[in-house]
Amino acid sequence: MYQIDLNSDMGESFGAYKLGGDEELIKYVTSTNVACGYHAGDPMVMEKVVRMAKERGVAVGAHPGYPDLMGFGRRKMVLSFDEVKNYMKYQIGALMAFTTSQGLKLQHVAPHGALGNLCQYDRDTSRAICEAVYEIDPSIMIFYCAGAVLGEEAEKMGLKTASEIFVDRAYMDDLSLVPRKMEGSMITDEDFAIERCIRMVKEGKVTSINGKELEIKGDTLCVHGDGPKAFAFVKRIREAFEQEGIAVRNFGV
Amino acid sequence: MYQIDLNSDMGESFGAYKLGGDEELIKYVTSTNVACGYHAGDPMVMEKVVRMAKERGVAVGAHPGYPDLMGFGRRKMVLSFDEVKNYMKYQIGALMAFTTSQGLKLQHVAPHGALGNLCQYDRDTSRAICEAVYEIDPSIMIFYCAGAVLGEEAEKMGLKTASEIFVDRAYMDDLSLVPRKMEGSMITDEDFAIERCIRMVKEGKVTSINGKELEIKGDTLCVHGDGPKAFAFVKRIREAFEQEGIAVRNFGV
Amino acid sequence: MYQIDLNSDMGESFGAYKLGGDEELIKYVTSTNVACGYHAGDPMVMEKVVRMAKERGVAVGAHPGYPDLMGFGRRKMVLSFDEVKNYMKYQIGALMAFTTSQGLKLQHVAPHGALGNLCQYDRDTSRAICEAVYEIDPSIMIFYCAGAVLGEEAEKMGLKTASEIFVDRAYMDDLSLVPRKMEGSMITDEDFAIERCIRMVKEGKVTSINGKELEIKGDTLCVHGDGPKAFAFVKRIREAFEQEGIAVRNFGV
Amino acid sequence: MYQIDLNSDMGESFGAYKLGGDEELIKYVTSTNVACGYHAGDPMVMEKVVRMAKERGVAVGAHPGYPDLMGFGRRKMVLSFDEVKNYMKYQIGALMAFTTSQGLKLQHVAPHGALGNLCQYDRDTSRAICEAVYEIDPSIMIFYCAGAVLGEEAEKMGLKTASEIFVDRAYMDDLSLVPRKMEGSMITDEDFAIERCIRMVKEGKVTSINGKELEIKGDTLCVHGDGPKAFAFVKRIREAFEQEGIAVRNFGV
Repeated sequence: MYQIDLNSDMGESFGAYKLGGDEELIKYVTSTNVACGYHAGDPMVMEKVVRMAKERGVAVGAHPGYPDLMGFGRRKMVLSFDEVKNYMKYQIGALMAFTTSQGLKLQHVAPHGALGNLCQYDRDTSRAICEAVYEIDPSIMIFYCAGAVLGEEAEKMGLKTASEIFVDRAYMDDLSLVPRKMEGSMITDEDFAIERCIRMVKEGKVTSINGKELEIKGDTLCVHGDGPKAFAFVKRIREAFEQEGIAVRNFGV
Repeated sequence: MYQIDLNSDMGESFGAYKLGGDEELIKYVTSTNVACGYHAGDPMVMEKVVRMAKERGVAVGAHPGYPDLMGFGRRKMVLSFDEVKNYMKYQIGALMAFTTSQGLKLQHVAPHGALGNLCQYDRDTSRAICEAVYEIDPSIMIFYCAGAVLGEEAEKMGLKTASEIFVDRAYMDDLSLVPRKMEGSMITDEDFAIERCIRMVKEGKVTSINGKELEIKGDTLCVHGDGPKAFAFVKRIREAFEQEGIAVRNFGV
Repeated sequence: MYQIDLNSDMGESFGAYKLGGDEELIKYVTSTNVACGYHAGDPMVMEKVVRMAKERGVAVGAHPGYPDLMGFGRRKMVLSFDEVKNYMKYQIGALMAFTTSQGLKLQHVAPHGALGNLCQYDRDTSRAICEAVYEIDPSIMIFYCAGAVLGEEAEKMGLKTASEIFVDRAYMDDLSLVPRKMEGSMITDEDFAIERCIRMVKEGKVTSINGKELEIKGDTLCVHGDGPKAFAFVKRIREAFEQEGIAVRNFGV
Repeated sequence: MYQIDLNSDMGESFGAYKLGGDEELIKYVTSTNVACGYHAGDPMVMEKVVRMAKERGVAVGAHPGYPDLMGFGRRKMVLSFDEVKNYMKYQIGALMAFTTSQGLKLQHVAPHGALGNLCQYDRDTSRAICEAVYEIDPSIMIFYCAGAVLGEEAEKMGLKTASEIFVDRAYMDDLSLVPRKMEGSMITDEDFAIERCIRMVKEGKVTSINGKELEIKGDTLCVHGDGPKAFAFVKRIREAFEQEGIAVRNFGV
């Protein structure tokens, strides 16, 4: 029996600034990664997303990032181990005030943007994130991008993990994502994207941008939702999974 | 048998900016009010204060404030009920990540600066703070300035409360603090300040700046520590309490 | 011969957050009020708006606000005279780096949001803003909402002024804007809105929400642009003015 | 005839946070590098430093940094060329509002912290800074650390430059500063430090930490002032220069 979690980044609005279609997207996913006020999000936004998640039975995870609102957490910052660890604790704790208020348990933590990218290969940063999570609550899961050392470090520490795959991003030979600036970085053919997802989940395989066959583990699929077309695509993905006998559900914390 | 808690604001440093003598002051108090990153404090500072509190057996409370680092939370901002409530949750939750990591329970919440001043008379703001605390964990205590409506609102909601008195601030006839700009606002005679504290705790009485006798409840005494003279004064206060048979201890959560 | 300036708030995007349709709106206005990074805007956004203004011959003004990005400058903050004055200087100067780089002179300063509302009646705040402008460059103009004491204070100081009127907002009997929460606050009938504007410019008169005839001075008209319908309306306004023999142009600095 | 400028970083306080001894240090230097609100400083602080500089005849320069108050601008951020350029313009312009208000001309720009360190070897970052300065006012001078590519890029662009040397920091063989973590990074012997400065100014030579003789150009000497001992040292430096016939003065803009 196959199964997959569908996750999406949400809660990225800030004050008067609206970003993404959280109200619609929440209908189609099983997990949500909620920004925590450092690179995006604010307490009003966090409260709203957590409340919607509760209403829809969607599991809530933290999506902490660099303290860089102006750069949306997409610019690398050189931080010490303790800075990463404490910045994670701060953001995760802030979100937990809202999940606790709703009687929800925090399901997972998934680092955002440039911090997330760093976890592909940087063991110190990965450990700092895992230690933060472990010390707050060792039953919180770590979402890592398939192939990232973050997954290995989390497992060493005894944390539960989920390997994240992407519906619309091509892979390099080392399972890192093809940088957005490179040609072919985005999978634009929806049928092919869905087929590729199904193969990743059922066979544990994906073809890299260079045509190489790679092993990949897909526990949770990252989808985006911005505009009617995107929502329709996410709906199609869910339907395709169900037809293929792949159960779409979160990790049931 | 009389008893009193000694509390102090701590964790007000930020990045390269150092404020207050936390390392020394932590030796003399029984509770600490920790800034939560909005008006002061950052995750590195919060981690350090909570760790020191754990080592010394000092109880930890949250000291949330307005999102105004440039004004140190001392400037009134006109916020909605939901803004106050969610800003409180965010800050309290952020601090709880550090207390939880240390195996500590959060003892209390004490609003800071202009937000705290507003709680003297503003029932909406007071309720917003109490609702935030109640929804996170109804066993967390509210510290309110003696006479503030915050205390009444907290009790209505079934929260535990502690009435805070000040060692070095004179009172108006309505128990509000004499504004710092007014003459006589600060009690500068140490012997008199200590005598006055003992009377507040034992007799529940204090004389206002206008010579009026007022009833006052003193569960926790706020002290400051900035420089050798201040630390010596706090030490004297503790000794005086002990000589008078007033047990100095926190609320034992 | 009648004339009117058409102004609009622009440069309100921030980092990854987009707000407003600056690229389109810049085609229809003669002046732009540019956010300066405190309540909205960032250096990348400021550079872009100033560059577009230069290309289109649109005059640039500063739109400074409270240091409250999370509240978009719409929440009143209690600041001292010197705080207002220096916060204004900081923001105006920051924008002038971009106008100077483009060989443009800063035409005007128009306070934003809750700070702007305060200038309707608060003389201290108004003077603080005027002093900031005067000390930087006494040839910079002040935009004030028709009826605001800001206009009087600016004139006392010898600054040039322009009285701003609104195309879509109803007026109270004292010329303050009908609060957005009240019924009838917005003029939704486009034909009536345009007629009303023409009457304000040509006759210097407007009817309040209570039916009272008021005198009003209209030197510059504030328009908004968010979406195709809004742009079409601004275009209609320009055309109507031109048909009525009202020249649409800025103050020619 | 020899001459040297004495500069110091100032205006690094922020809100309630005080840093450095600006009021005292301003008496001993001939130029000041003023933080501009991104990594340190705020409009109140900037106004005060500029006013003191005016009273003392001290020349004012901008000391712009990364938008990272929590890290005091000491943590490398990966920014684009345009981000660096526009962030510089914003900060320089903000400071110029205060110099203009005092009838002063901005003498120079000296990048701060991790951004300054990057200018030792990074030509893109250096050019971004120089372009920002050039477009605002090509008569503003660039301060660069002796040996930094920032100096070369500024000269290519036709900007005036001053090569900055340090009284208390040891040099590597490539004229970069010995990192603070390495042994021997700080020159602690005051007599030797002063002798070394005089040799740098008069002979244009300095011995590296490895004993290598290096050519060095010293137009401006960076001093620090934090506490009575530091002020006394700066005073001694001035006196030593005067005895050696080295005129202590700024660049006379």
